Amino acid sequence: MEIKLTPKSEIELRTARLQEKLTQQALDGAIILLNSDMFYFTGTVQTSYLYVPASGEPVLMIKKSLSRGKAESPLKNIVPIKSPKEIPGILAEFTYTSFNRIGMALDVLPVNLFNRYQKIFPNTQFCDISPAIKEIRSIKSPYEVELLRDALSVIDKAHLAVPSFLREGMMEIELAALFEAEMRKRGYSGCCKMRAFNQDLFLGNTLSGSSGCAPSFFDGPVGGNGVAVTHPHGASWKKINRNEAVYIDYTCVVHGYTGDQTRIFCIGELTPQMVKAFEAAVFIEAEIIKAIKPGTPAEEPYLLALKLTEEMGYKDSFMGYQDDKVKFIGHGIGLELDEFPILAKGLKTPILPGMTFALEPKFVFPEGAIGTENSFVMTEKGPEFLSSTPNVITYIK
Amino acid sequence: MEIKLTPKSEIELRTARLQEKLTQQALDGAIILLNSDMFYFTGTVQTSYLYVPASGEPVLMIKKSLSRGKAESPLKNIVPIKSPKEIPGILAEFTYTSFNRIGMALDVLPVNLFNRYQKIFPNTQFCDISPAIKEIRSIKSPYEVELLRDALSVIDKAHLAVPSFLREGMMEIELAALFEAEMRKRGYSGCCKMRAFNQDLFLGNTLSGSSGCAPSFFDGPVGGNGVAVTHPHGASWKKINRNEAVYIDYTCVVHGYTGDQTRIFCIGELTPQMVKAFEAAVFIEAEIIKAIKPGTPAEEPYLLALKLTEEMGYKDSFMGYQDDKVKFIGHGIGLELDEFPILAKGLKTPILPGMTFALEPKFVFPEGAIGTENSFVMTEKGPEFLSSTPNVITYIK
Repeated sequence: MEIKLTPKSEIELRTARLQEKLTQQALDGAIILLNSDMFYFTGTVQTSYLYVPASGEPVLMIKKSLSRGKAESPLKNIVPIKSPKEIPGILAEFTYTSFNRIGMALDVLPVNLFNRYQKIFPNTQFCDISPAIKEIRSIKSPYEVELLRDALSVIDKAHLAVPSFLREGMMEIELAALFEAEMRKRGYSGCCKMRAFNQDLFLGNTLSGSSGCAPSFFDGPVGGNGVAVTHPHGASWKKINRNEAVYIDYTCVVHGYTGDQTRIFCIGELTPQMVKAFEAAVFIEAEIIKAIKPGTPAEEPYLLALKLTEEMGYKDSFMGYQDDKVKFIGHGIGLELDEFPILAKGLKTPILPGMTFALEPKFVFPEGAIGTENSFVMTEKGPEFLSSTPNVITYIK
Repeated sequence: MEIKLTPKSEIELRTARLQEKLTQQALDGAIILLNSDMFYFTGTVQTSYLYVPASGEPVLMIKKSLSRGKAESPLKNIVPIKSPKEIPGILAEFTYTSFNRIGMALDVLPVNLFNRYQKIFPNTQFCDISPAIKEIRSIKSPYEVELLRDALSVIDKAHLAVPSFLREGMMEIELAALFEAEMRKRGYSGCCKMRAFNQDLFLGNTLSGSSGCAPSFFDGPVGGNGVAVTHPHGASWKKINRNEAVYIDYTCVVHGYTGDQTRIFCIGELTPQMVKAFEAAVFIEAEIIKAIKPGTPAEEPYLLALKLTEEMGYKDSFMGYQDDKVKFIGHGIGLELDEFPILAKGLKTPILPGMTFALEPKFVFPEGAIGTENSFVMTEKGPEFLSSTPNVITYIK
């Protein structure tokens, strides 16, 4: 693995797509601040302020570190800055002086910071550009898809390594430590990012048996008990027993891109009920993959899964136990974990070529969580797997 | 280690301190949303909305998971909620109907979410309550200090374990994986939290030799190269050589509280220059510890260190290399890594008993980063170490 710098052609394409949106929305330009957006449009996350005009070259103003930002970003106009107060003056030097309507990502920008920008641009109307950015970012280029494949290859290797260290009687947290180290030593950068407010990032779920059924604040089918009330999810102090489902669901961030994958392990044997549920999850995944194609509305995978689970009698366990369910079966993945498309009830936006997403049919029973999760890219020919570990339960003697 | 639930007496004390501030600021109450604030005032981070009236019992409205939130929080009034739209109706049931001025943490609340609350409370003036919350949270109770000691004991054990796995020729990222696993298996919850916008959390710094001098966006003296442009800090793919300073600076979050500690290792021998700089850092720490007492202005440790480093001829290397310096020598630690007090130039707020902070005199040279970092609590008698690993360079043959 090596550090990959974003090619100039990628940045140019992304900028052009943003400028098209700016023009459509009659905006003079956009100020980009959030790290994930900053990286997408510049290739760097050095502490910076990016101005993308509706037409013309963007200006990247770097506070710290300028030398590193210049080495990382292929943008033409990169200048030093000490405070955002200098932005209007710097932009004037690039002949950008009209700021009637400016886009900012108001889904993430804190109020106090917004007020600061309103003071710097007293006559400007700031408009929320985040829906446009999310839409642009949801369509991945072939370059981005390759980065995501790298992330999946790292999580693949970690999942394949589990039988070498999973032992009866070890604590979930010990297994988590070993699993995370497998990803980390291969280039996992650390916690994945979520865009939604207050969605604290965490490392992943390493759960055994009944831990899979712990009720959770997390907007996912499975939560776990965690090792602290402040981080009430993921691996706990529970010991892993024979004949329990060991559920390992992790994101893996490599080159900034977030793969997401779940595999099931067991020391000994699972109950027939759990085996049957696992097979149902694999079947649902296969049916969804057969059914969806470019243009399929985002809610269809969920609705199809719902229909199938009801037919199979799994209504109470699908995507959470009883009343503690989530109403989606997948989500977009990229620089953040909660990207478009969200494969949820009520969302009719089409799944388009270039969209990358995780699909996670899962069941939760009092005896544990079971199911599968894989990452995909939608191509012109339909969805394509981004990983290669076998979609099976791995038994350890 | 076990999961610790916040005692009722802690929550009552914290609530009383917030209510005092609300009364002082003529606020009817505060709506608390951010996880770290939520945990502080309720004992849970289940997806919730907390209302703290200027007087009377707080109301915790839980969306997911109610059962878990009830088990975790000692608050009296805990009710279910589906959407924040229901907040005024629920509060009316508790006879809270006056919302002229309400406090919210506007330093973290995104604009779109703020607008949503403004619609729910159309006649309310929302005021920033974050300075008051930060001030309250900066004074730790003896209970909180004990939790922090647990965090430091975990990072102590990880630092002490390093000689058992640090080997010449291993990559920084491999060392990071092993170090993190040592913390993780003992109850480290995962990435620490920072309150400031865009301060992406990361796992820590495991740097060797020249990596310690990489310029960085991070608001700290030492950055590192990282394994991805999106996460441009921390361990890299560089191999660790003999006679290099191996710099391991990590936060460790246990029970939600963030310990912070740096130790230096070396396979072989360090140059006399590096050894001397290390001794200077330890000397500076000792001088600061002697000099500060309850009431000392927050900038004094930094100014004292600056004076000492100038006298010792380390001006160019202190807290960063040449132009890439930070202007502080320590920071508050607690539920977040960037708490009060900030031991920085220009900050005159007093360091009070109960304040917990990391002190990190460090030097950066082209050949590497070196220094020390320990976590402290200010007591009536002066600062007290929270950890116990020896403040020395650990040599490995």
